[in-house]
Amino acid sequence: MSGVVRATYEIETALPLEAVAEVMAGEQSSGTFVRVARETSELRARHAATVAAIEELPLSGRPPLPGASGDWRSARRARVSIDFPLRNFGPSLPNLLAAVAGNLFELREVGALRLVDLDLPAAFAEVYPGPGFGVTGTRQLVDRPTGPLIGTIVKPSIGLSAAELAELVAEIGDAGIDFIKDDELQGNPPGLPLSERVPKVMDVLKRVADRTGRMPMYAFNITDDIARLADNHDLVLAAGGTCVMVCVNTIGLAGVQYLRERCRLPIHGHRAMFGAYSRSPQLGIDFVVFQKLARLAGADHIHTNGIRNKFYESDDQVLASIAAVRAPFLGGYPALPVLSSGQSPGLAHATYAAVGTADLLVLAGGGVHGHPGGAAAGVLAMREAWDAALAGESLDDRAARVPELAAALTTFGRY
Amino acid sequence: MSGVVRATYEIETALPLEAVAEVMAGEQSSGTFVRVARETSELRARHAATVAAIEELPLSGRPPLPGASGDWRSARRARVSIDFPLRNFGPSLPNLLAAVAGNLFELREVGALRLVDLDLPAAFAEVYPGPGFGVTGTRQLVDRPTGPLIGTIVKPSIGLSAAELAELVAEIGDAGIDFIKDDELQGNPPGLPLSERVPKVMDVLKRVADRTGRMPMYAFNITDDIARLADNHDLVLAAGGTCVMVCVNTIGLAGVQYLRERCRLPIHGHRAMFGAYSRSPQLGIDFVVFQKLARLAGADHIHTNGIRNKFYESDDQVLASIAAVRAPFLGGYPALPVLSSGQSPGLAHATYAAVGTADLLVLAGGGVHGHPGGAAAGVLAMREAWDAALAGESLDDRAARVPELAAALTTFGRY
Repeated sequence: MSGVVRATYEIETALPLEAVAEVMAGEQSSGTFVRVARETSELRARHAATVAAIEELPLSGRPPLPGASGDWRSARRARVSIDFPLRNFGPSLPNLLAAVAGNLFELREVGALRLVDLDLPAAFAEVYPGPGFGVTGTRQLVDRPTGPLIGTIVKPSIGLSAAELAELVAEIGDAGIDFIKDDELQGNPPGLPLSERVPKVMDVLKRVADRTGRMPMYAFNITDDIARLADNHDLVLAAGGTCVMVCVNTIGLAGVQYLRERCRLPIHGHRAMFGAYSRSPQLGIDFVVFQKLARLAGADHIHTNGIRNKFYESDDQVLASIAAVRAPFLGGYPALPVLSSGQSPGLAHATYAAVGTADLLVLAGGGVHGHPGGAAAGVLAMREAWDAALAGESLDDRAARVPELAAALTTFGRY
Repeated sequence: MSGVVRATYEIETALPLEAVAEVMAGEQSSGTFVRVARETSELRARHAATVAAIEELPLSGRPPLPGASGDWRSARRARVSIDFPLRNFGPSLPNLLAAVAGNLFELREVGALRLVDLDLPAAFAEVYPGPGFGVTGTRQLVDRPTGPLIGTIVKPSIGLSAAELAELVAEIGDAGIDFIKDDELQGNPPGLPLSERVPKVMDVLKRVADRTGRMPMYAFNITDDIARLADNHDLVLAAGGTCVMVCVNTIGLAGVQYLRERCRLPIHGHRAMFGAYSRSPQLGIDFVVFQKLARLAGADHIHTNGIRNKFYESDDQVLASIAAVRAPFLGGYPALPVLSSGQSPGLAHATYAAVGTADLLVLAGGGVHGHPGGAAAGVLAMREAWDAALAGESLDDRAARVPELAAALTTFGRY
């Protein structure tokens, strides 16, 4: 099996750059800390990872991570690309990770190491089909061929009774929402298990469809032990549901891939826990890599956050994440960016101006449910704001005609 | 369902500590950034997470992670414990993670946030049986009732032919090794798939057993897509193998739990990729939490590294990790600490003096295969060094009687 995987890292080290890059390549392929018997030149030629490029970067100015060797006053920072022979692991997502991530983060030769990009050969596409629905398939299921998909998250995130949830879903469904999702905290809890939640919600949604002619997509959070994922999915499918949601990091990329093999619905990929290995600029795995792996595993929708969100990311970071999800990968793997967190109608114009596309799923949780006129007014305000943005009408002009939008701007602010 | 999960974090923030702790509890239970309809006091009383303790700590002196709010000159650091109602997620490992980890790392209210401990109610023990073999079961399988289990890793890690691997296994098997493992980089690659590797290695090991009366345990690295884990395990079991190995982080904790439900052999848990979310002291998840979750999922053996290892951790950190794996969890869940990385005979006395137990699996890779007399001499040197340590005999005295040990000390050093 020929072909290579190219992994790109940003590192900072007080040791000679070239030597450290060689240690990285050796540690993750045929090497160990001493030369051993049977490590022939032929074996090394076939299996050793090789340093493809080293590009020096300005220093970060941050102190090194613990345990870094050398005198940090002589630190250098660089972008290092390493080519791994595909034959070392084959097109296997878990074994790929052991090679390109694996022990690297623990190397004392570095004071910072972050996996920032990953290029995979076509052999992966032959094994992993990726998103089954993507942007087009999702639009078809919700019967919204153009414009952003407007969605919301059930709030309060946990604790509603089945009756309260049904009431809420009816209210926002009738208001013309495209998409509703469970909160990532709402899995399969004893108080409102999927076996009760799914039929109850689907009954309501079918009646919404009878009244309005369109059935919103509801992403049921089926995150659970792996052996239950297929049954949870089947429950949603049998009830007429059109989407399942999982927390990519808590069931693991391998868990997403397992679900994908058994899945006949779009997979809504929540990124809970992503920050644990991404927020430090000195360590971990960048969103660019995360979203490629999530798409490879089969996620149709991937959370990117939205601009001005309540979390730590800058708008530039959010926009880069949205662009990453929209960029072709392995010749396709189209996924839908999910803009969420602190989103409200006042952000529509700024978001559209920055991303230049309406192939988005825009979620407002508090920004819908916290509307002074109730959730239905919140949905209407979101739709009107985006409609104005796409039509080139200012927020003020539209708000002057739509009191629900004016009330939203007063409550949640504008930008 | 009553009961609480207590999660403990170390945070650093420039905002008032008490308010930040409340944000953490709210974000991960019933709250959002605005109060919403149906968020009744009764709902909050049943589902809100609560701040159980705040203990101020000295500042880290590190700059904040990106996006932290406030003026860092007024930063404070604290250990914060939060109680989560079990009813919010039930005893479900993936949904537990969404609650206690989830979005917390991305909060702009903090400039550092690390999950450092996790206490689970007994309901988890009713669902997840944990290690099936642990220390005692592993000792029985290798017929080594006392003393450390001495093991090695196949080196070179990848690239050996089936014939070369067989030759190597015979050599170290005849030398009296207790345990052999595939490298974490050796999964199920096209060049030497498990279907070829497992029968070849087991044939050799059975002949070793015929000659020596004992069959070493071989941990086949069955890391793979989840749907193949059970088949890979069955292949090992059918061939008479006694252990399977997985990379806990690349198949995910949920993947380990899936395997455990189908497993009749000890699970050797490698920690590859752990550093991605643990090396920054300001972020991620501590080893204490990782090893509890790995044991909950069913890992029998957990890599802790050994002292003076080639990676970044200090000896104090390694010793704390070994102690954590040995500490009872949920009334039991006994697992075997795996000391590896840069290990050699010269470390036996220092290790034993520091850990005070022989309930260890001590792995030397290069420290066995790089021995000038070959791998068999390397195994003998490891065994003699540990035998001397347990018998209270100095390394020098034993080396004077055992030339293979003397040669190992010359080659790999002594401490």
